[in-house]
Amino acid sequence: MFDADPAGLTSAEIDVAEAARWLDGRVLRTPLLRCPAIDRLAGARVLLKAENLQTGGSYKMRGGLYAVGRLAAAGHRGVVAQSTGNHAVAVALAARHHHLAAAVVLPVDAAPTKIAKARAAGARVILAGTTVAERLAVARRVSDESGHPLVDAYDHPDVVAGQGSASLELIEEAERAGTPLDLLVLPVGGGGGVAGACLAAAGRPIEVYGVEPVGCDSLARSLAAGRPTPVRPAPTIADGLRPACVGELPFAILRDRLQGAIQVDEDEIAEAFRLLLMELKVLAEPSGAAGLAGALRLTAPGRAGPRTGGPSRLAAGGRSSRQVGGARRRRTVGVVLTGGNVEAELVARLTTAGISEEVAA
Amino acid sequence: MFDADPAGLTSAEIDVAEAARWLDGRVLRTPLLRCPAIDRLAGARVLLKAENLQTGGSYKMRGGLYAVGRLAAAGHRGVVAQSTGNHAVAVALAARHHHLAAAVVLPVDAAPTKIAKARAAGARVILAGTTVAERLAVARRVSDESGHPLVDAYDHPDVVAGQGSASLELIEEAERAGTPLDLLVLPVGGGGGVAGACLAAAGRPIEVYGVEPVGCDSLARSLAAGRPTPVRPAPTIADGLRPACVGELPFAILRDRLQGAIQVDEDEIAEAFRLLLMELKVLAEPSGAAGLAGALRLTAPGRAGPRTGGPSRLAAGGRSSRQVGGARRRRTVGVVLTGGNVEAELVARLTTAGISEEVAA
Repeated sequence: MFDADPAGLTSAEIDVAEAARWLDGRVLRTPLLRCPAIDRLAGARVLLKAENLQTGGSYKMRGGLYAVGRLAAAGHRGVVAQSTGNHAVAVALAARHHHLAAAVVLPVDAAPTKIAKARAAGARVILAGTTVAERLAVARRVSDESGHPLVDAYDHPDVVAGQGSASLELIEEAERAGTPLDLLVLPVGGGGGVAGACLAAAGRPIEVYGVEPVGCDSLARSLAAGRPTPVRPAPTIADGLRPACVGELPFAILRDRLQGAIQVDEDEIAEAFRLLLMELKVLAEPSGAAGLAGALRLTAPGRAGPRTGGPSRLAAGGRSSRQVGGARRRRTVGVVLTGGNVEAELVARLTTAGISEEVAA
Repeated sequence: MFDADPAGLTSAEIDVAEAARWLDGRVLRTPLLRCPAIDRLAGARVLLKAENLQTGGSYKMRGGLYAVGRLAAAGHRGVVAQSTGNHAVAVALAARHHHLAAAVVLPVDAAPTKIAKARAAGARVILAGTTVAERLAVARRVSDESGHPLVDAYDHPDVVAGQGSASLELIEEAERAGTPLDLLVLPVGGGGGVAGACLAAAGRPIEVYGVEPVGCDSLARSLAAGRPTPVRPAPTIADGLRPACVGELPFAILRDRLQGAIQVDEDEIAEAFRLLLMELKVLAEPSGAAGLAGALRLTAPGRAGPRTGGPSRLAAGGRSSRQVGGARRRRTVGVVLTGGNVEAELVARLTTAGISEEVAA
């Protein structure tokens, strides 16, 4: 966990641009993708940053590589991490790259793909419990016994900065293309990625939103309560978005900078997964597809999003006075497709789940 | 069909670089993708040109847009096309873009995705038979009745040049990255794309290979016979590679310039499909995945390809004296992922077909 005063760090010590420079040439510069079918459905220009194509299969590689690289430079000989999967894979790959030992703690119900990837990278894989608290207890013990530092999946300034570099690339490439972002949407697990997105967008007129599965809405509750507020996460196909509580450091950033938290249900996540696969032609994991599902809820005409007066699933952040969807012009929405590590069985199930609807449409 | 002297055109009138300039900004500049798992399996550096992400879902957009654009500039008010799907979709989209009428002839067993895309683009869709000959007869009648020219799917210099622009982008981007291609591999239907690849590679030390499904090996037979030789195409999941005969114009280019034709079976195509989906994280249609399957047969250690002395499926082209795989250094192989239009049911079936093997591995 992050022990210093989180708020004090947000502007002073977390430098997304510096992380982006460090990562340049060390991670893939993933493409920005678009497709007419998604634009039409969204009623907006949707720019999708394909971090599912990133080395290791997710944008977690950025934070993992940056944090582990700095620990290696500081003389550490090993690292410890816990996560539902992608951060553990990233830390394992980063440790191998820097010739460090790695021990990673995953839940007993982790996606086999993610376990296999962490093992293939040479990490010691420990399966422990199903909650963050259980994994963290084991990870801390391993860290204490080995003397190797714990690289938290989101409560770590280098991880936040590294993840933020994906958003910064998206923002800058959209500007270069002459279509600067109005909205930037990311899925939320522990909140590190969306906190990095807020820092990356700082100083620009971009509204940043986080997307949570219904029943995994720690961020929405935390924003409402004014402090990190845990939930008992509901089951979801978005296995990367299950942390019980948003991290302290991300929350300290998000409470002042996030436009709002959007909740999406399992059907919306599955629909976004199919759109990405069958229309955009890329494989996102459900956690990654959740970002698009949230963007559709924000912008798509006729959706029960905050614009339409339907049941509001928007929890306002610190800038809640700004109106969503007030402008008539065609908006540009950036979405980070955070990862693509998903089981083949789930791909098959999600792909065919919508066929009867498609035929009827 | 192409009526002038095909051989005379190949160097004089088919200008891939000119097509690439015309198409610049009119089609997507699709990304070049790589992933470690595919590199490892291939024993080579594999650069995949993701034309499955192209507008319309395939590289056929390039040839269709270029050919139709030039017809529109010449004052034509409509166009006619026939294909198993992607060329028809491309011509329909290109005609809409240029405000021309379009009639496209598809087989009665065309992929519903492709029929729907052609209709959505506003084309008149005619379903006729299952063979090229049946479709061509209908297309010629429609062309005669309407006075609108027939844009052949491969026997057309602008189509060959347009498709070739995908290979040219791949070749040039690989050079810019400091990893110039040693091999360039494309799937073969009527041969237009691989003919364009040969022209794009002209003057460079790049071996170009075409890949055909077993039982759809018109190119291999044509190279052996020295003239276009039809086959009765076997059933294959690669629905885009079923033409009964390589085109006359492509053959005139290929007989002098192609390094060889490789045959791949259904299991190899399905394996390549899964690799692209689960490792690279992109959706290719089986016809597009066939290119990777052929590249693996050429380069992967231990495969029954021409290198290993196993059952040779290589039909030598005009430059057969050059040895494949003689060099020890790590080779760079370019593959054009030609398309991504595939039915959801087939995605589900192909994705899960390999699970028992993966678990056992």
